Amino acid sequence: MSRSFRRSNPITIVLAAVLCIGFFVFFFSGSDGPAFTKKTGAGETASSPLSPPSLPFRKSKGNAPQAAPPVVHYYMNNITTSRTPMENEESVLILTPLARFYEGYWDNLLKLSYPHNLISLGFIIPKTKEGNAAYAALQAQVTKTQSGPKSKRFAAVSILRQDTEIPLQSQDEAERHKMENQKARRAAMAKARNSLLFTTMGPATSWVLWMDADVVETPPTLIQDLAAYDVPIIVPNCFQRYYNEDKKAMDQRPYDFNNWIDSPTARELGAKMGKDDILLEGYAEMATYRSLMAYMHDASADPGAKVKLDGVGGATLLVKAEVHRDGAMFPPFAFYHLIETEGFAKMAARLNWESYGLPNYLVYHYNE
Amino acid sequence: MSRSFRRSNPITIVLAAVLCIGFFVFFFSGSDGPAFTKKTGAGETASSPLSPPSLPFRKSKGNAPQAAPPVVHYYMNNITTSRTPMENEESVLILTPLARFYEGYWDNLLKLSYPHNLISLGFIIPKTKEGNAAYAALQAQVTKTQSGPKSKRFAAVSILRQDTEIPLQSQDEAERHKMENQKARRAAMAKARNSLLFTTMGPATSWVLWMDADVVETPPTLIQDLAAYDVPIIVPNCFQRYYNEDKKAMDQRPYDFNNWIDSPTARELGAKMGKDDILLEGYAEMATYRSLMAYMHDASADPGAKVKLDGVGGATLLVKAEVHRDGAMFPPFAFYHLIETEGFAKMAARLNWESYGLPNYLVYHYNE
Repeated sequence: MSRSFRRSNPITIVLAAVLCIGFFVFFFSGSDGPAFTKKTGAGETASSPLSPPSLPFRKSKGNAPQAAPPVVHYYMNNITTSRTPMENEESVLILTPLARFYEGYWDNLLKLSYPHNLISLGFIIPKTKEGNAAYAALQAQVTKTQSGPKSKRFAAVSILRQDTEIPLQSQDEAERHKMENQKARRAAMAKARNSLLFTTMGPATSWVLWMDADVVETPPTLIQDLAAYDVPIIVPNCFQRYYNEDKKAMDQRPYDFNNWIDSPTARELGAKMGKDDILLEGYAEMATYRSLMAYMHDASADPGAKVKLDGVGGATLLVKAEVHRDGAMFPPFAFYHLIETEGFAKMAARLNWESYGLPNYLVYHYNE
Repeated sequence: MSRSFRRSNPITIVLAAVLCIGFFVFFFSGSDGPAFTKKTGAGETASSPLSPPSLPFRKSKGNAPQAAPPVVHYYMNNITTSRTPMENEESVLILTPLARFYEGYWDNLLKLSYPHNLISLGFIIPKTKEGNAAYAALQAQVTKTQSGPKSKRFAAVSILRQDTEIPLQSQDEAERHKMENQKARRAAMAKARNSLLFTTMGPATSWVLWMDADVVETPPTLIQDLAAYDVPIIVPNCFQRYYNEDKKAMDQRPYDFNNWIDSPTARELGAKMGKDDILLEGYAEMATYRSLMAYMHDASADPGAKVKLDGVGGATLLVKAEVHRDGAMFPPFAFYHLIETEGFAKMAARLNWESYGLPNYLVYHYNE
C-alpha cells in the first residue's frame, strides 16, 4: 500500500530524486585556521573553518598519521553575522540552482573579492541531458579553480544532482515565462532551493547568498556591499544588458520583477482566489499594481538607497543564515498566494525578518 | 536604523542567539567504509559515511601524511530511504531539543540496535543554568560513549547551544502545559527544531528521527521497526508509566496528545479564529473532537496497526529526509492554525507527504 502510494504520487517521485545525489566535489586548501578556532589544554581542537555536524573527523596535521580523537571540540562562540563580514571571517554559502552553465557566471564568481577561503559553493543540477552538460562544464571549472592558485580556491564545493527535470527549465525563455507554466516551474524551483539549502547549510554558515546561474555580472564587492546594510534579507536590482536598436548602442533594462512592495489591489486579488492559486508578477493579464523595484532604478539618485520589500526574487539574494535556521524556506505551495522566493519573503515576514531592496545597485542577467 | 530594528525586535534576538553555537563534539570511529563509497580510477574517493557539503577535507588514510587532494568525489548514487535501512546502510540523524538531561534517554539511545556507526546525533540546548547542567551531563556521557567500545560509538555528535531560554521550558509540568503558555513555548520549540534541522542535516542523511529528551524507553529495534513501514512520516504512541494507586501496581497511561485525525469541529474552530490564533489539543476549554491516537491504543489488537494522521507530536517521530529537504519544517507561526509538530504534519501534507501513527507501538515518556 505504501509502495503504491509512492508510485502514484508524482511529487513523491520528484522528491525521492533529490536524494539521488550524484556527485560531490570537495576541497580544502589546508591553509590558515580561522579566527574562531582556539587551542585548549583539555582536548583536541579541530581547525575546520566550516564545521559540519555530521562528518566523521580525520586528523591529518603533524608528521605522523594519527587516529581520529574520540571527541573533537569546535569552539564557535565567535561566529557572527555582521556588517563587516570580512573582518569577522564570516562564512558565506553561495547557492545556485543550475540548469545551464554560463561561463560568465563562473567568471563573475571568481572575481568576487570576498576571501574565497570563506566561501562555500553549492549547486543543484537536474539529471537531464542539458543538466549533464552543465554538470560537465561546471566540474571542469571547479577542478581548474580548485587546482589553481590557493587564493582563488573556494573552501568547499558541493554539487547535488536531481533525477528529474525542473519543468520547462530547458525550454526557451518565452515558453518558460508563460503564466500557466509558472506555478509548476516555480514549485519545482522552490523544492530544488529547499533541498539545496537543507543539505548544505552547516553550523558555521553566517550568510547564504542565492545566485542564479544566469547572473553573469555583479560588482566584485557584492558580498561586502550587501552585508554592510546589516539587514536580514537584501536584494540588488537585477537588470539585463542588451543592444538597443534605436540608440544603436548597448543599453540596459530591468529584468527581475519579483522584487516588490505589496499593493491593496494584489491583496484583493489574493483574497478572491482559491487557496492553491498564486499571484504572479509581470503579467498583463494579472495587474497587481504592486510597486516594482525594477522600475525604481534611478541612476541619478543615491546609489545606496534601500527600500523595504514584501516580495523578493532569487536572482541575487543575500540572507542571514539565522533567517533560514528559523525555518524560512521557499514554499513550493501557495503561501498567502505566493510561491518560491516571493513566498520566502512572506514567510520570513511571518517570522519577523524584514526584506530590503537596493533599486540603484545593479547586477546583470544573461541576455538569451 | 537597522541596528535599532534588531534591538527592538525580540524575535531577532532569540534567533541571533541560535547562531551562537557554543560547542561541537565530534567523532569518527575510522572503521569500515560505507556501501556507497567506491574507488575510481579517475581520482581520490573519500570514504566518509556522512558527507558534509561544506567541510574542508583532510585525508589521513595510508601511512604517509598527505595533503588534501584538490577535488574529492563522493559517489552517493546508492543512498536510499527504504524499508530495510540496515541492509542498505542508511544514515539516521537523531535530533533532540534538550532542556534537561535524563539518564534514561541516553541509556535508551545506547540500547538502539540500529548500527551506531550509521547514527549521527544532534542536540540543541538552551544557554540557561539548567541548560548548562544538561550540557555538562550530556558531554560526560558523549565522551564516555565515544571513548568506549567501537560498536557503541555514534558516527558523529553535534551539540548546538542557544543563548536564550525556551520560554517556560524550565518551569514545572503543570505551568508548562497551561494553554496560554503553549503558543510562545511551542513557537520557540519550533525555532529550536528548525535551527537544529537546518544546521545538521547533510547530503547523506536518509532518515531524521526526532526524539524528545524525556523519552526514556523505546524498543531497541525502534528505527528498523518504524522504517519498515516505508512511509514519509511515522509516529509511535507515546505513553507514560506510573504507579496506579488504585491497582497498587505499575501501570501506563497515554501521554502525547498531538497525534490526531482532524475533525469538522476543529476545522470550524479554526475558520472562526484570527489568523495568528492556534488550535491546541488536550485542553478542555477547546474541545476539538479530533480522534486522538493516544486513545486508540488497544493491547489486544494488531500490534502493527497503522492509522493515517493529520497532526503529529515530536516525542518520537521518524521522517524521511526528503520530506524535510522538500521544505517541510516546524512552523513557529500559525500555519492553518497549527504550530510546531502539528503544523509540520500540515505542511508535509501540503507537499503531498502523508503522516501515519502506530496506536499499539509504544514508547514511554519520563514520569516527572
